[in-house]
Amino acid sequence: MMASHSDATDSYLIRPNPDDPRLSAAVAGTDQSGRPVDLSVVIERPLTIFLNGQEIVTAMTIGDYPAELAVGYLRNQNMLRADDVITQIDHDADVDVVVVRTERETDFEDKLKKRTHTSGCAQGTVFGDLMEAVEDIVLPPAELRTSWLRRLTHAINTTPSLYLRAGAIHGCVLAAGARPLIYTEDVGRHNAIDKIAGFMFLKDITAADKIMYTTGRLTSEMVIKTAQMGIPILISRSGFTSWGVALARQTGLTLIGRARGKRFIVLAGGDRLVDDVTDAEVMEASDDDDG
Amino acid sequence: MMASHSDATDSYLIRPNPDDPRLSAAVAGTDQSGRPVDLSVVIERPLTIFLNGQEIVTAMTIGDYPAELAVGYLRNQNMLRADDVITQIDHDADVDVVVVRTERETDFEDKLKKRTHTSGCAQGTVFGDLMEAVEDIVLPPAELRTSWLRRLTHAINTTPSLYLRAGAIHGCVLAAGARPLIYTEDVGRHNAIDKIAGFMFLKDITAADKIMYTTGRLTSEMVIKTAQMGIPILISRSGFTSWGVALARQTGLTLIGRARGKRFIVLAGGDRLVDDVTDAEVMEASDDDDG
Repeated sequence: MMASHSDATDSYLIRPNPDDPRLSAAVAGTDQSGRPVDLSVVIERPLTIFLNGQEIVTAMTIGDYPAELAVGYLRNQNMLRADDVITQIDHDADVDVVVVRTERETDFEDKLKKRTHTSGCAQGTVFGDLMEAVEDIVLPPAELRTSWLRRLTHAINTTPSLYLRAGAIHGCVLAAGARPLIYTEDVGRHNAIDKIAGFMFLKDITAADKIMYTTGRLTSEMVIKTAQMGIPILISRSGFTSWGVALARQTGLTLIGRARGKRFIVLAGGDRLVDDVTDAEVMEASDDDDG
Repeated sequence: MMASHSDATDSYLIRPNPDDPRLSAAVAGTDQSGRPVDLSVVIERPLTIFLNGQEIVTAMTIGDYPAELAVGYLRNQNMLRADDVITQIDHDADVDVVVVRTERETDFEDKLKKRTHTSGCAQGTVFGDLMEAVEDIVLPPAELRTSWLRRLTHAINTTPSLYLRAGAIHGCVLAAGARPLIYTEDVGRHNAIDKIAGFMFLKDITAADKIMYTTGRLTSEMVIKTAQMGIPILISRSGFTSWGVALARQTGLTLIGRARGKRFIVLAGGDRLVDDVTDAEVMEASDDDDG
């Protein structure tokens, strides 16, 4: 158990830094008996994202990884293409602005006009645009071993995080097999997944052999973003919506909900699942994870 | 206990209807052993809101109370004024459109342009506009008895709901004292609170003597919306963010987090709290709630 746990947490390229003083603050409250209590709360702050001099959006974020959030947001909104070359990223922390510059000239006047009519939905993004993008998605074959599911959720749940420290935050994890690689957190799960998209773009990480894990609900938006990123498997400890399931089936995504260690629900793409857990004790002692 | 429960659930003007076949559907999945399981999931659908012929937004919603959602959304976005007279509301379920018509002519060309630059944030609404609206808010004096907190959370938690049936949904409750009045649910908590704002506008319900309860996190947006609606008290069973707390203190809102029956945390506006629970058993047997 300890070896497996230690392997898993050692596998991180990026992990939460709950001790970063910029990310949480002590707030003084009182409990039901009137006794003062100091509580750790997550700090939100605005971040305005520019693409080549054009103001695109102001996101509320915990503020770590602003470059990755900006790049991932632009990528997931299809404003940044897979083959775009980023020439510079400037983050000015004083005014909460990040500017992404590309070789290609961009002008999203029309696109931004369109957003006027489609944004503000429950999930807070460009639903119309995302729906269009789904049609052409073809996800690669992949394998999800049931032993990975168990070890991955254990590794994530025991990783020190802002969630464990302060709560009221969403997390997303990019994993290879049972090994978590990039664990991001933010007040909105869009931001957490956008940061992962940013890391993947900037570090040129392949998607086809990865797994996305989210603490939040499997909404249509999370399914579309994961599929759009080319990741064939999406896992959540939480529930799901009917559109999330329908879109997973449409795009051929493997969708796992209510993943709590040994128990989980397969909602779509069950063909990628390989049941290698015949005996839990044997598995945890001998399974040699090759990601 | 039963009498208190029965009183509370009888007090509803509007309550969830988990048996409505339009709101949830059975989705076939398999569990960790490969056994087929039928799961109840919430159905999301788009709803496009028009104000006097101008398309304003497309929201993803469970689809109950489209008129109330539209009116509440427009009211909470300050597109509909407190003194506006609604002449007609048309809902066309076939095309998922609701049109709100007012006596006053409206034109939100400029406002919608502004949204282009501020929407898409973590909470999915017009943060810039909301921040401006906060400055002038003065909330009325009010009372929150600790006995109400206990009875209200018990009443809400035992009310049949889509949350209990299918999960993956947010709820908001407008209450008078310990009595829940309007309980709405939706995939996004914005929609749930907007529906309550719609009911309040259409039924001319006063805000000053009411309490808002939410199942979700106390984010800046929930605090701003509650304060903007003129409701002096906001309670959640969940956590909170630093901006949520800061904005509650700025607007003079009473903010209670992690409300789990007997235990809760007062984060702001503790002056409205009246501790009338000296002995839990005495309270539950004899407290005569006058709302």
